[in-house]
Amino acid sequence: MRQATHEFNIPTRGRGLYEFTHEATAWLSRNHFRDGLLTLHVRHTSASLLIQENADPDVRRDLEAFFSRLVPEGDPLYVHTLEGDDDMPAHVRTALTTVNLSIPVYKGRLVLGTWQGIYVWEHRRAPHSRRVAMHFIGE
Amino acid sequence: MRQATHEFNIPTRGRGLYEFTHEATAWLSRNHFRDGLLTLHVRHTSASLLIQENADPDVRRDLEAFFSRLVPEGDPLYVHTLEGDDDMPAHVRTALTTVNLSIPVYKGRLVLGTWQGIYVWEHRRAPHSRRVAMHFIGE
Amino acid sequence: MRQATHEFNIPTRGRGLYEFTHEATAWLSRNHFRDGLLTLHVRHTSASLLIQENADPDVRRDLEAFFSRLVPEGDPLYVHTLEGDDDMPAHVRTALTTVNLSIPVYKGRLVLGTWQGIYVWEHRRAPHSRRVAMHFIGE
Repeated sequence: MRQATHEFNIPTRGRGLYEFTHEATAWLSRNHFRDGLLTLHVRHTSASLLIQENADPDVRRDLEAFFSRLVPEGDPLYVHTLEGDDDMPAHVRTALTTVNLSIPVYKGRLVLGTWQGIYVWEHRRAPHSRRVAMHFIGE
Repeated sequence: MRQATHEFNIPTRGRGLYEFTHEATAWLSRNHFRDGLLTLHVRHTSASLLIQENADPDVRRDLEAFFSRLVPEGDPLYVHTLEGDDDMPAHVRTALTTVNLSIPVYKGRLVLGTWQGIYVWEHRRAPHSRRVAMHFIGE
Repeated sequence: MRQATHEFNIPTRGRGLYEFTHEATAWLSRNHFRDGLLTLHVRHTSASLLIQENADPDVRRDLEAFFSRLVPEGDPLYVHTLEGDDDMPAHVRTALTTVNLSIPVYKGRLVLGTWQGIYVWEHRRAPHSRRVAMHFIGE
């Protein structure tokens, strides 16, 4: 049994979903990890991780549209507004999704479904560099 | 320290919560796993995993009612509509919940609370067979 | 490779976010755990776990305000009302967030971002004692 930790950056161009399934699987193969558990953790409070459909891009567009309407900017409810109209909605959207994921690895592959891709969901309007920590334990 | 991976199918009869706590604990006891970590991952983008109350069935009925209202079918917001009115809401509901769970195992039992059960939440109207991958690491 | 499980109680004074990052890191250092994976699981169906900003307390206030409005008490939608007006909203809020988290540990520290704190989110109005199970595997 062995383990390893790695961190990498996902550059974003503002709000939206950025797939990084390839970065995760490339790290697994570089290290010849075959069976075990991969855990991903995004080290921010205004971006989250999501496993969603990687086939039709309209699905991501609609997910974004739904969350933008559910958590509108400029909501008079908020007190924390100094960091911009998109900041508090970004925290709420992060709370509604998640910042870590754990996916089994079997025979060298993540056990993702046919249509599942792994995404960083950037919730701020401005481009950011998002740090994702990866941990593997297994063989 | 040892580990194992297993996959099984949960047949659903359309939208709703399907408990499979027993399938998970049965696999643990069959393998005599006593202490460690169990990770569950549903390999779909329109069904999710949920830990919720397994006592009063009205709780599940009300959870379903809340999510159906929050994410209505036939919403003019959506562009991705070819796979049916219930498809895009299923993706949104999956994003609002989660596709993987990790639960410690202690002395042969999942450390679930008294009222916690593990469910597949089917978000499509039609019956499906949902694949859930399980991974255990420990002793 | 070694592992350990521990359980502790977080007393709450009713609805709101209660940080326990310190309790988690203190347990890691007491046991001299340096590298591995920490998993947290709250054993309830009306309280959840959240990683969110621990700098400006207004962020927590606004998160609470958003969720209170999104999931109002006394909603005529609910059938499960015998345990109080805040009970069913507590189940819904738990479903919208999560009950378990897995965070890599690297060189004796959780790989949390600068502003990330770990919270129990109490969703009931009355004070409770919430049980959180912790599991570590690594070295």
